Amino acid sequence: MAILVVGSVAFDGIETPSGRVERCLGGAATYFSLAASYFTDVRVIAVVGEDFKEESVFQRRGIDIRGIEHVAGKSFFWRGSYMKNLNEAQTLDTQLNVFEKFSPKIPAEYTDSEFLFLANIDPVLQESVRKQLPNARLVCGDTMNYWINDHRANLLKVLKELDGLLINDGEAKLLAEDGNLVRAAKKILATGPKSLIVKHGEYGATAFFSDRLFPNSENHISLPFRAPALPLSEVVDPTGAGDSFAGGFFGYLAAQKEITPAVFKRAMFYGGVMGSFAVERFGTERMQELSREEIDQRFALFRELSHLD
Amino acid sequence: MAILVVGSVAFDGIETPSGRVERCLGGAATYFSLAASYFTDVRVIAVVGEDFKEESVFQRRGIDIRGIEHVAGKSFFWRGSYMKNLNEAQTLDTQLNVFEKFSPKIPAEYTDSEFLFLANIDPVLQESVRKQLPNARLVCGDTMNYWINDHRANLLKVLKELDGLLINDGEAKLLAEDGNLVRAAKKILATGPKSLIVKHGEYGATAFFSDRLFPNSENHISLPFRAPALPLSEVVDPTGAGDSFAGGFFGYLAAQKEITPAVFKRAMFYGGVMGSFAVERFGTERMQELSREEIDQRFALFRELSHLD
Repeated sequence: MAILVVGSVAFDGIETPSGRVERCLGGAATYFSLAASYFTDVRVIAVVGEDFKEESVFQRRGIDIRGIEHVAGKSFFWRGSYMKNLNEAQTLDTQLNVFEKFSPKIPAEYTDSEFLFLANIDPVLQESVRKQLPNARLVCGDTMNYWINDHRANLLKVLKELDGLLINDGEAKLLAEDGNLVRAAKKILATGPKSLIVKHGEYGATAFFSDRLFPNSENHISLPFRAPALPLSEVVDPTGAGDSFAGGFFGYLAAQKEITPAVFKRAMFYGGVMGSFAVERFGTERMQELSREEIDQRFALFRELSHLD
Repeated sequence: MAILVVGSVAFDGIETPSGRVERCLGGAATYFSLAASYFTDVRVIAVVGEDFKEESVFQRRGIDIRGIEHVAGKSFFWRGSYMKNLNEAQTLDTQLNVFEKFSPKIPAEYTDSEFLFLANIDPVLQESVRKQLPNARLVCGDTMNYWINDHRANLLKVLKELDGLLINDGEAKLLAEDGNLVRAAKKILATGPKSLIVKHGEYGATAFFSDRLFPNSENHISLPFRAPALPLSEVVDPTGAGDSFAGGFFGYLAAQKEITPAVFKRAMFYGGVMGSFAVERFGTERMQELSREEIDQRFALFRELSHLD
């Protein structure tokens, strides 16, 4: 089933202990859609400026970019450094540019999308897209510290509508105002999302479930579920790892006939798999040139890494 | 098979966000031997002072304490706080007392021990015990920042003799002088230990293997192995979690007929299980009153938490 994703398509400047790139294709919707494209059809809603010439990157992966609006001005630009900490980017420059007045519109040919992913943007825009797609079957989303701290009321409206919220440890604890992850997850699930996927970087990810995700009693998941990450001897560029996780996770879900607990767990593994590929090269390089065979081989590796038998 | 453990038997004063205990039984060899006692016979080498009256705690678990030497003076005492960070104790007081002149001697009735665990003490003492038990079939050990920083040469002699070294992330990176865990593991394995078990606290643990652990080619493990931890809504007292992990891990290994990769992986899970129990109450409270049934139920929970099928 087709996924519609709304979020940033942008340019990044990145420095890490492995090197430096002045300007490369980036943005949450970019990483997400590339990762998800290995599993199912993807449609992108975003805005870019006159400097954007990267259509072919999406087209080569069969991604539908009719929803990327082109306007006068420059594309969103972010520059960050991981020199001090590979686990957390230090933002050196943010130029919103054309993103400042972004008002997402869903093209008529996208309205039958059954799977909606609200990547990390202003929750007011997330809400607007959600409203324009009232029949979406499964809606997941992401957010970040800035929206949690300064736009909490708007964010809470979006959370109520989510089947799954994907954030990292720090964001979960900040959102719940609780330093214990299990209690934080319980509080977050009480605000609306039917599931919470907490990303732990090099330690993998944990999913927490509300009873509302699988309301059929024989399908209940009461325990959380932990997916591993792949121990890597070099993390070349962590940018986009979380968005690639989301793309693998949601892409796998959208490609299945039915979403069961077993399918959800496998989706967590595919999320980790795509995140592990993303960090092997700068920017979206690795996400552009994978094969489904490579992906499934790594999925098998994740199983071997974490399973007893 | 019987395990011999050498390490501290001590008293602790502990404060955590869940409460405060002025003085309770503690020490690495105490937590280790209690945890291991659910799997196999355990013999303890340690030293205590005239204030030690806790024999019955060990005896109720069938632990052989003929190797605990009683000398004039006071027992080792440690006081720590987890008020600022549940993941790392802040040491408020350390009184070595009778431990200052500890010279471990192995009683004649212990010399047939096939499994030796060198808990976190001066590597010179670890080495001395190792030499007194030349026929030990499997030797694992622990250490900490202090020995890594200031007693590196002595520590390296011990590492050469180990089948498994159990330390945490920070200690592994410090020991290898490398901030990447995979590279750090490779460097540490090159110094001698046949396996390295890195404990990640609430994120579980990862084992790394050298080819020397399972030299038979059909038994090789080239991938690391990740065991989960149990997400807990309250960590009452983290003291002894790592030692309890070691006790569960090594206790399970020692109880098996043969040590295969599959057995090693299950031992990692049992380590996590015992660590998860340890933190549920203050001090050794929880470690004293478990049943093997409870332990195996939680083992099943760990499997459900992390396995796809």
